[in-house]
Amino acid sequence: MNTGKNIKTLIVNKPLKLDCGKTIKDFPIAYETYGSLNSKKDNAILVFHALTGDQFVTGINPITNKEGWWSYAVGPDKAIDTNKYFVICSNVIGGCMGSYGPSHKDSDEKIFGTNFPVITINDMVNAQYSLLDHFGINKLFSITGGSMGGMQVLQFISNFPDKSKTVIPIATTSSHSAQNIAFNELGRQAITADSNWKDGNYTSNETNPGKGLAVARMAAHITYLSKKGLQEKFGRKLQEREDLKFGFDADFQIESYLRYQGSVFVDRFDANSYLYITRAMDYFDLAKQFNGNLSEAFKNTNAKFFIISFTSDWLYPTQENKDIVIALNSIGADVGFVEIESDKGHDSFLLDVPDFLSALKNFLDKSYEEN
Amino acid sequence: MNTGKNIKTLIVNKPLKLDCGKTIKDFPIAYETYGSLNSKKDNAILVFHALTGDQFVTGINPITNKEGWWSYAVGPDKAIDTNKYFVICSNVIGGCMGSYGPSHKDSDEKIFGTNFPVITINDMVNAQYSLLDHFGINKLFSITGGSMGGMQVLQFISNFPDKSKTVIPIATTSSHSAQNIAFNELGRQAITADSNWKDGNYTSNETNPGKGLAVARMAAHITYLSKKGLQEKFGRKLQEREDLKFGFDADFQIESYLRYQGSVFVDRFDANSYLYITRAMDYFDLAKQFNGNLSEAFKNTNAKFFIISFTSDWLYPTQENKDIVIALNSIGADVGFVEIESDKGHDSFLLDVPDFLSALKNFLDKSYEEN
Repeated sequence: MNTGKNIKTLIVNKPLKLDCGKTIKDFPIAYETYGSLNSKKDNAILVFHALTGDQFVTGINPITNKEGWWSYAVGPDKAIDTNKYFVICSNVIGGCMGSYGPSHKDSDEKIFGTNFPVITINDMVNAQYSLLDHFGINKLFSITGGSMGGMQVLQFISNFPDKSKTVIPIATTSSHSAQNIAFNELGRQAITADSNWKDGNYTSNETNPGKGLAVARMAAHITYLSKKGLQEKFGRKLQEREDLKFGFDADFQIESYLRYQGSVFVDRFDANSYLYITRAMDYFDLAKQFNGNLSEAFKNTNAKFFIISFTSDWLYPTQENKDIVIALNSIGADVGFVEIESDKGHDSFLLDVPDFLSALKNFLDKSYEEN
Repeated sequence: MNTGKNIKTLIVNKPLKLDCGKTIKDFPIAYETYGSLNSKKDNAILVFHALTGDQFVTGINPITNKEGWWSYAVGPDKAIDTNKYFVICSNVIGGCMGSYGPSHKDSDEKIFGTNFPVITINDMVNAQYSLLDHFGINKLFSITGGSMGGMQVLQFISNFPDKSKTVIPIATTSSHSAQNIAFNELGRQAITADSNWKDGNYTSNETNPGKGLAVARMAAHITYLSKKGLQEKFGRKLQEREDLKFGFDADFQIESYLRYQGSVFVDRFDANSYLYITRAMDYFDLAKQFNGNLSEAFKNTNAKFFIISFTSDWLYPTQENKDIVIALNSIGADVGFVEIESDKGHDSFLLDVPDFLSALKNFLDKSYEEN
């Protein structure tokens, strides 16, 4: 979690009215950049992170000391080539890596906990818009992100239709489905079931709902992988033993793997942030903002869209990505679409999937040449 | 949970050696029957229940006062016609509806908790075999069950190849997949994360890990329904409100539904039984018992098989059911197979799915006429 070191922070002075009705001001947005902004300031790419991501897109994350979440895609000569582009990413509000969130203190120096306002994807992108002013960027070259990052991409171009030349939503949806909400609610219930959660006031009580948060992470993690991918990687392989032990320790590698994923997550993430960010995802319904007509969300933009889905992603399946393509096509927008063959499930966008990475690179570089 | 009333119990005197190596004896098997055994004793159907089922197949369950879990399929003139057949179902060992399980006491009058031996699907069916002797049945007319019930069907006919004329595994698998194990492990972690679980000794500590058990149930419940079915039934419908409330109460009907499913489950199920039964499912790998050759499991039986899967079942998808068909075909067994079109997911076998119910009825009645 945020220890304060190595975190670049922009204090947003302009008041921001949130969807819940409250107004926030003088709040921090933590961000990171990669590459250099050119003199024309036309090479900036704003990357939006997913549920458990942060601003540390590539290289070693200084807080976790692990590789950034999009290291396969972003870096010198990579798909998002930092020799060429200036990459900006900020921690979403509601998050726990420096941006304004439930672990921050209110005006009475009391940690917000669940008194932090419930935020939306719309609030997130409106807060992040301040980064353009900060860097003096009139128009981004591209905006991109996968999963919840893709939701922010869609919301951003809807809110600021002339602020990006290209738009790349990946493995995402324009509206959270009942199954998506169900899995998020499961995670929230796991956290709030932990007696150490203490109605969100765990920090002042010097406790930590780590067990509940770990269960939430395990549930989510299963949804990030495909059934086939899990079977191929783990199957029924045993964990450092010759045979079943007839007990409740982790006999199978998949059990051990899930437990590990849960335990390392707790070291880097805040339970209340998990509640807030999943809530924002569940509230996301872009079509509803336009009386049920998704096309209307994009009617004012001339941006060039490229939408990417993955065959084995059952969390945000190809059909939900295609629904965005259809909405764009119906208003004659400039839109490309590719479904990438992968058995790595929803996580494909984070992994070394060469067809995906080359599609992303080709779209960006070709579009940049047209500049 | 078992309150003792209205529970028929058979005490099994014959020692049973479990797969874990321990031997149990003089243990109870709680059962229920429907219809009448005919004089030739050739009309008995042994039904095996799924993870959270019990012996109360149809009519009002005297413990929960709700409809039995297979009321759509079993009853007078129904698919499994109790005017014609004698239906027997028993609570699995490890369960909590009267059969020998972790809430029972050991020889020192101490509640077993996690000192109860880890049991397997093989142990379950070996224990249930005693019911045939009890009723003086030499050969069953049929054995059937869905999900974990289907696993017991497969194991039973493998262990006792001449003890059933027909065999109907439904929505099941011959080997628990990595994803299946992952979801079960998630449920176990949710239970053991509850501080009231107390290493399984919650009863003697006068606590109840109800929150953890509810989370486990919610996780499982999502897997029982299809994405499409959830979307059609719930979508993004709000729960008794005009608009989002910007809080963490259940805004969406799907949230409210899941919370309800979790809460009612806790009233009828025991947390340790949930651990034991999911463990038995995860351990199930029928092919492994025959050196990886599933066909060998069935080589000694002349029974007539009928295998049923559902299009939208992603927990035990059609392919895993087909694998059983293939294994049977490869040894020239008498096997029929049908994939039923349904958007109700894995739960289809429990619901009013007319194509399924008529297929089941037709197979049984035609096979019985051949008697």
